[in-house]
Amino acid sequence: MVIIGGDAAGMSAAAQARRLRTEDELEIVAFERGAFTSYSACGIPYWIGGDVGSRDELIARTPEEHRKRGIDVRLHTEVTAIDLDGQRVRTRAHGAAGGAAGGPRGAEEWTGFDKLVIATGARPVRPSLPGMDADGVHGVQSLGDGEALLDSLAAAERADGGARRTLRAVVVGAGYIGVEMSEALIRRGHRVTVLDRAEQPMSTLDPDMGALVREGMTGLGIDVRTGAAVTGIRTDADGRARAVVTADGEHEADIVVLGIGVRPETALAEAAGLPLGDAGGLLTDLAMRVRGQRNVWAGGDCVEVFDRVTRRPRHLPLGTHANKHGQVIGTNAGGGYATFPGVVGTAVSKVCDLEIARTGLLERQAERAGLRFVTVTVEATGRAGYFPGAEPMRVKMLAERRTGRLLGTQIVGREGAGKRVDIAAVALTAGMTVEEMTGLDLGYAPPFSPVWDPVLVAARRAASEVRAQGS
Amino acid sequence: MVIIGGDAAGMSAAAQARRLRTEDELEIVAFERGAFTSYSACGIPYWIGGDVGSRDELIARTPEEHRKRGIDVRLHTEVTAIDLDGQRVRTRAHGAAGGAAGGPRGAEEWTGFDKLVIATGARPVRPSLPGMDADGVHGVQSLGDGEALLDSLAAAERADGGARRTLRAVVVGAGYIGVEMSEALIRRGHRVTVLDRAEQPMSTLDPDMGALVREGMTGLGIDVRTGAAVTGIRTDADGRARAVVTADGEHEADIVVLGIGVRPETALAEAAGLPLGDAGGLLTDLAMRVRGQRNVWAGGDCVEVFDRVTRRPRHLPLGTHANKHGQVIGTNAGGGYATFPGVVGTAVSKVCDLEIARTGLLERQAERAGLRFVTVTVEATGRAGYFPGAEPMRVKMLAERRTGRLLGTQIVGREGAGKRVDIAAVALTAGMTVEEMTGLDLGYAPPFSPVWDPVLVAARRAASEVRAQGS
Repeated sequence: MVIIGGDAAGMSAAAQARRLRTEDELEIVAFERGAFTSYSACGIPYWIGGDVGSRDELIARTPEEHRKRGIDVRLHTEVTAIDLDGQRVRTRAHGAAGGAAGGPRGAEEWTGFDKLVIATGARPVRPSLPGMDADGVHGVQSLGDGEALLDSLAAAERADGGARRTLRAVVVGAGYIGVEMSEALIRRGHRVTVLDRAEQPMSTLDPDMGALVREGMTGLGIDVRTGAAVTGIRTDADGRARAVVTADGEHEADIVVLGIGVRPETALAEAAGLPLGDAGGLLTDLAMRVRGQRNVWAGGDCVEVFDRVTRRPRHLPLGTHANKHGQVIGTNAGGGYATFPGVVGTAVSKVCDLEIARTGLLERQAERAGLRFVTVTVEATGRAGYFPGAEPMRVKMLAERRTGRLLGTQIVGREGAGKRVDIAAVALTAGMTVEEMTGLDLGYAPPFSPVWDPVLVAARRAASEVRAQGS
Repeated sequence: MVIIGGDAAGMSAAAQARRLRTEDELEIVAFERGAFTSYSACGIPYWIGGDVGSRDELIARTPEEHRKRGIDVRLHTEVTAIDLDGQRVRTRAHGAAGGAAGGPRGAEEWTGFDKLVIATGARPVRPSLPGMDADGVHGVQSLGDGEALLDSLAAAERADGGARRTLRAVVVGAGYIGVEMSEALIRRGHRVTVLDRAEQPMSTLDPDMGALVREGMTGLGIDVRTGAAVTGIRTDADGRARAVVTADGEHEADIVVLGIGVRPETALAEAAGLPLGDAGGLLTDLAMRVRGQRNVWAGGDCVEVFDRVTRRPRHLPLGTHANKHGQVIGTNAGGGYATFPGVVGTAVSKVCDLEIARTGLLERQAERAGLRFVTVTVEATGRAGYFPGAEPMRVKMLAERRTGRLLGTQIVGREGAGKRVDIAAVALTAGMTVEEMTGLDLGYAPPFSPVWDPVLVAARRAASEVRAQGS
């Protein structure tokens, strides 16, 4: 069993297959072009911001730990070709020192497989604009990216006299990563400007909900500039980024962080003739087997997943899905049986104490899917109104006309807002109508919820709206 | 439309009926024997403990506010008989002053109805043991009870010299109310002993989970005595409680709080020949109409509700259900259509920062229902393990053998543990199997959850156990 990519999906698959099969039954080799395995890229903003003390805390399982469990991890080893007919992959070692695991530097060799797992992940979008590769422009996709950014920050923060300098940081993109990185940079004491092309930050929310996130970010002192299309990076004579250029002007920058999103890393798979979807991700069956293949599986950020609401494939890179994919792949490759049922599109994030969550479809996604729907937005507190710390949260809910089926929920608010989205995520998975949701028996006690949980308040309003609309 | 009982179920019904019908179309009269309407009895422990500053904060809507909306609220007016054939109720005013709303003190009169709503609530269990009615023995069911307890505490806390006295408080019963009252009394600075007959506190949890609550309570300095059957209250010459007596000895007490549970207040309904269930609660149809009646509805703590897991009626007094009942009754009585779908038995509570939650069936309840099941208990953190403040929580899950259907979930842990039970509550409502739950798309980000949410960790383990058991 050969695995390409040593992060969540690949190494979960390896670990699960190993649980089912001994080393005599199944040899497992994992190729990783970087230096780390099984790490949490989602934790990078918290490492940069100082919540997490060191890189190593983000590593769930080291190469040594995997090796102890009988998984042959080869670091600094890039797979450069997949030969499906020959059932083999070509690798090139480019390790700093090479050595036992990685082989001599630059050497190419072929490794045969009976079972192949493609878990090549995603790469951050870097628009091909002038200066995008300049010094001081950073992605935050891998632990290596995180280290480079931290080094760059540490160097820039050291002023000539030895005092700590406040930097001008520009974050390009106000999605999850952009928002989390803004908070991290603010916590390091810098001046932060966030640029986004969209009308509001968090375009994973509807604009009216994104506006609440803008308020929260502005309140933290983050300069949020929307409708700002970046046209390039201005560099100095040393090739170092000095400003981010937009149609409306320049934003001076000592450091630039790119949080524009990611694309599936599927060049290798494409070259091997494997099927890709509209978003460039590998297409798989329910058992995470690549379509048309018998012994090739794929999972994690390099695949497209089935959206249970629109019933179409989409690219949704998220660690929690990658881990589930790995679990499913490892079970199947190990001779068991498991399937991945798809996603409903749940996500949660925060910027300081403002919690941001969504599940299901936004208005524009529902429209694109051909759905007609009602939309309601309510404000309710997360605890009994009289309980100390009861803070308002905004809940937006979409329900299909006629059927009343829940289509999506967005929540923005303080403590307790974010994970409440799980109620809607489970209801969505179960295909519940908003009318059915009004009867949900949720945990109630004054420190935890009003008698009508905010999600139920929204469901009641939505159900009433569905009835009012008729057909 | 005549309503008996002016708290959650009754007044929600009144308010909802009024939304649907004008005063010309429907006259609404609500009789309340006490002095308050629409209050949160669940908030009383937090008022006693000082989280909530005043009684009035617990009142969601005053009699005046109801009257302004065209609901004729008559306080201090007890309904003493229901004449179903004559479609009328007999009332006795025993208000302090009587007056416009209440009628002259002691007067009895008959009021006719076209539609009747019985929302008489529940009364705290007071075992008929010596001394149970002594001064210094308090229930905490109504706002009046809360006021009496606060007065009693204030008087006892005032030492002779003017300094504040530390009291010896004994709480009888270690269920939700007992646990919440223990915390309240600890927060007032008193020495608290809790007595319960059961093996562990929180017998709404399985004993192994109750043991975690005991640890938490003991850690707060609460003296938890289980297996302690109370045989009476020792009083002094003035008839004031001085100690709680158990088979094993006496527990000296300056104040005694009863948290033994409640029974449906259905004497009036029973006298009128209305049908009661095994737990003494009124039996209704899905529209909350009393069985066999055309124009009589009942809701709140005086009814039995349909348990969606055991598929039998049970008594489950909780404000969140009472409000839903009121909503359903008001809609139906107002000429609309709504049903109450039943409960899955979700409850959440806390003792300081220890959160306690359950939904569905305990082991003994599942056995009693004739179910065979697997049980798993896992420990997992509520945030990514590397994120600051990631605290372990214990999740116990029951799933039916063969079908793998989720039967129940219990969670005990720190921040973020309690409301996670909602995930299981919705899954239970949807009839999901634990295998289906393993694929749930829940909110994931390091400050909110590990990649595998604790509930999913438990579901995975339970699914594996179901498979292992076979038939």
